[in-house]
Amino acid sequence: MEFTAEQIAEALEGTVDGDKNCVVSGVSEIDAGKPKTLTFLANPKYEKYIYTTEASIVLVSNNFTPKESVKTTLLRVKDPYGAMANLLQLYEQSKPKKIGIEEPSYVSKSATIGKDVYIGAFAYIGDNAIIGDNVKIYPNTYIGDKVSIDNNSELFAGVKIYPHTKIGKGCIIHSGAVIGADGFGFAPQKDGTFEKIPQVGHVILEDNVEIGANTCIDRAMLNATTIKQGVKLDNLIQVGHNCTVGENTVIAAQTGIAGSVEIGENCMIGGQVGISGHLKIADKVQIVAQTGISSSLDEGSVVMGSPSMNVSKYYKSYAYFKKLPNLAKEIKELKQKLKDLTSEK
Amino acid sequence: MEFTAEQIAEALEGTVDGDKNCVVSGVSEIDAGKPKTLTFLANPKYEKYIYTTEASIVLVSNNFTPKESVKTTLLRVKDPYGAMANLLQLYEQSKPKKIGIEEPSYVSKSATIGKDVYIGAFAYIGDNAIIGDNVKIYPNTYIGDKVSIDNNSELFAGVKIYPHTKIGKGCIIHSGAVIGADGFGFAPQKDGTFEKIPQVGHVILEDNVEIGANTCIDRAMLNATTIKQGVKLDNLIQVGHNCTVGENTVIAAQTGIAGSVEIGENCMIGGQVGISGHLKIADKVQIVAQTGISSSLDEGSVVMGSPSMNVSKYYKSYAYFKKLPNLAKEIKELKQKLKDLTSEK
Amino acid sequence: MEFTAEQIAEALEGTVDGDKNCVVSGVSEIDAGKPKTLTFLANPKYEKYIYTTEASIVLVSNNFTPKESVKTTLLRVKDPYGAMANLLQLYEQSKPKKIGIEEPSYVSKSATIGKDVYIGAFAYIGDNAIIGDNVKIYPNTYIGDKVSIDNNSELFAGVKIYPHTKIGKGCIIHSGAVIGADGFGFAPQKDGTFEKIPQVGHVILEDNVEIGANTCIDRAMLNATTIKQGVKLDNLIQVGHNCTVGENTVIAAQTGIAGSVEIGENCMIGGQVGISGHLKIADKVQIVAQTGISSSLDEGSVVMGSPSMNVSKYYKSYAYFKKLPNLAKEIKELKQKLKDLTSEK
Repeated sequence: MEFTAEQIAEALEGTVDGDKNCVVSGVSEIDAGKPKTLTFLANPKYEKYIYTTEASIVLVSNNFTPKESVKTTLLRVKDPYGAMANLLQLYEQSKPKKIGIEEPSYVSKSATIGKDVYIGAFAYIGDNAIIGDNVKIYPNTYIGDKVSIDNNSELFAGVKIYPHTKIGKGCIIHSGAVIGADGFGFAPQKDGTFEKIPQVGHVILEDNVEIGANTCIDRAMLNATTIKQGVKLDNLIQVGHNCTVGENTVIAAQTGIAGSVEIGENCMIGGQVGISGHLKIADKVQIVAQTGISSSLDEGSVVMGSPSMNVSKYYKSYAYFKKLPNLAKEIKELKQKLKDLTSEK
Repeated sequence: MEFTAEQIAEALEGTVDGDKNCVVSGVSEIDAGKPKTLTFLANPKYEKYIYTTEASIVLVSNNFTPKESVKTTLLRVKDPYGAMANLLQLYEQSKPKKIGIEEPSYVSKSATIGKDVYIGAFAYIGDNAIIGDNVKIYPNTYIGDKVSIDNNSELFAGVKIYPHTKIGKGCIIHSGAVIGADGFGFAPQKDGTFEKIPQVGHVILEDNVEIGANTCIDRAMLNATTIKQGVKLDNLIQVGHNCTVGENTVIAAQTGIAGSVEIGENCMIGGQVGISGHLKIADKVQIVAQTGISSSLDEGSVVMGSPSMNVSKYYKSYAYFKKLPNLAKEIKELKQKLKDLTSEK
Repeated sequence: MEFTAEQIAEALEGTVDGDKNCVVSGVSEIDAGKPKTLTFLANPKYEKYIYTTEASIVLVSNNFTPKESVKTTLLRVKDPYGAMANLLQLYEQSKPKKIGIEEPSYVSKSATIGKDVYIGAFAYIGDNAIIGDNVKIYPNTYIGDKVSIDNNSELFAGVKIYPHTKIGKGCIIHSGAVIGADGFGFAPQKDGTFEKIPQVGHVILEDNVEIGANTCIDRAMLNATTIKQGVKLDNLIQVGHNCTVGENTVIAAQTGIAGSVEIGENCMIGGQVGISGHLKIADKVQIVAQTGISSSLDEGSVVMGSPSMNVSKYYKSYAYFKKLPNLAKEIKELKQKLKDLTSEK
């Protein structure tokens, strides 16, 4: 399918700055733009590529002013990244969807299966599981007994959902994610061994949650580990038992959250962050990558370091950390001068 | 099923402080306690909830003295967390267990299968594998050729066991764990490429080992990577080739251990710790989360930092790290004062 | 099969220092050497074991001079580690290989399957997938639609390859790896929710790439995430969307690379390293384990710390970090002395 700059501008409520009849049939990145494709400029870091890109159309912000001459057609919109997202969503929706039950698959007789579902080959649906309408379950996926998955959710190949997990509407779970494994709970014994504490709780994913590849969310000891609506978790994340992650909080890859942590709404947590158990992270907290959190955080905190401190204070201290050999030298010199001064007298 | 406080007290060798005939039919967390459930108080951080919880019975320590009035029935025991563990174990044991072989599954003709096993659909049992009595292998699990799994072990859905791995009695392996993949060994070549070193060893898990979801244990180059009895590994852990992890050592999520590391008994290792290759960690070592270990550690060490140092020394240094801008300011002032003093003369 | 020291020396172009007729039938580690086995000494740390090992033959460097008497037969070669690698490769090649299609498996009618392939039970090959000659696909593996896998590549059990991924010749992908999941891209909305940016790109693995267990490589938003030839990735690594990893770069376990990072050739990156998005890491860069990279790095840089700095500068600063309480005490003393001095006057 081909579209003109004018057609796309109409769909995105934008304006064309250049050739209105310029035609595209695909998309590309601005730094590797190809003719007859559309791309976008959102991050100023990439502005230099707009002057050389081979892409035919570039979505730019309404207030973008080129510093050099531009040969591509500009399509001005309010929010280029959002506009690109909208275009790609239209494109995704136009693609045919998987549907039906491939064989061999295993669907328990006691399971309830909604309309228009896809169940891939070698997928396993346990006893009394409830699968909503339009749910897509890709091959080699395991859905344990009594799991419920609400409408329009997608589980990619090889996802593992332990029994009793509840998954909301419109969730996306990527390959290899494990939802509902035993929380890590052991009672130490006098002889040095550890007695397992059975974990009889479960996991709840509310609506519109996205879980990355190979991410693990452990089930609660007694109640529920809860991922609230709109939460987006990247790949290889660990969420311990009894945690709650608040609405619209976003967490980058490889972050680990120990047990019984309560995280607020609209937090942004970087990659490889570690959060100790039983803490409370308030709303709108921002945590820089690799930070180690060992105490609770107030609303709006922005932190870094291990253990964490205010981000700008961390940067100031770290600047002096880099100069520590100099500071030590200065101290040594001061001592000597003072000694000289004292002995002079 | 319903139980009275008196019945539970008898089972746990505890005493009832309140209504002996109070009835429960389930369990809950103390901070989200529900009527007709039993909960426990072990971590003093949660004491505040005992004054408001809706739970009908709370397991507390024999020497717990309420600071306010308590409406719930208290059940006094020596170790509330351990008592809760015992109760939950009784509860787990009372649940029906999976048994039998679901179809379709793949069991090699040369495999040996014990009594009362469960083999879920799409599980794969390779040539000459030996599966002990009462072993549970959940769906979509892969057991390579010549693997042996001893009695009473459980492998959850989607576990992958490479050939020649030996698994002891009573082990639990969670979904997505990979046991026995190739160690990361390459010989650098003159042209900048790397030649693969075949890894012809294997992995041994001794008895009562628990392995978390998506954890990886690589097989040895020549001999065996060994996880000794009673070891508990959390999720997303990496254990490199040729490592040994000593008895009853516990490791939290996302920790990574490079190749040929020898870890002693009864160590406690926090999350996201990194341990460099070829080191020896003695018995009873404690490592704080996110620590980076680059040299061997003596028995009983407690360490933190990257590279690691004694934990209390780390905290002292870190306290001054936070004050570095002030220290630098003080040095500057001292230099000025000394200069003034010198020029005065 | 048994071999004499002389036969092995001939194969490796080495010389025998000891009993030429000494016979071995297996391999072992030097610190756990067994009679009738061959081992090697490459890392000087292990030299002490050569004086006590029970192994019958030890590969050593041409210029190795024993400090004590040695009872084992020495086999002198230029590069003992490389020689061991060659021997093990010969051993591996002599083992019978899996071949044929096990049932039940799922191979789309539109897929193209090469010669001498192995497709394990419960493997899934999607529509229009192209599988080259001699490719080995182990059980429970998922190959999405339109994936291509070139000759001689091996995918171990439970690997998940999303649609449109291109895999080169001679690649090895370990269990649980996920190639091509959605990049982590969301457009923030005014109401605090996040709108998913569809990821319509793909992943390219060039020739001779090895991917560790449970490692995740996300597909690009528009173009391709590219892992160039000869790259070796360890377990549990995260590679974000739109990244490029240059030829022969080696990355240790649990490292995370955010989106749109460009990594050069022949880099060596330690474990648990974090690299922020949109950075450029030049060729031959070395990054110490647990380092946090937040700015681009020049060719040949060797860095450590979070945020990263030159490795020797980091060690110098860290040495003073350990002494910070002393430095602070010295400053305090200096202040007091200066005060005394001033007041004296």
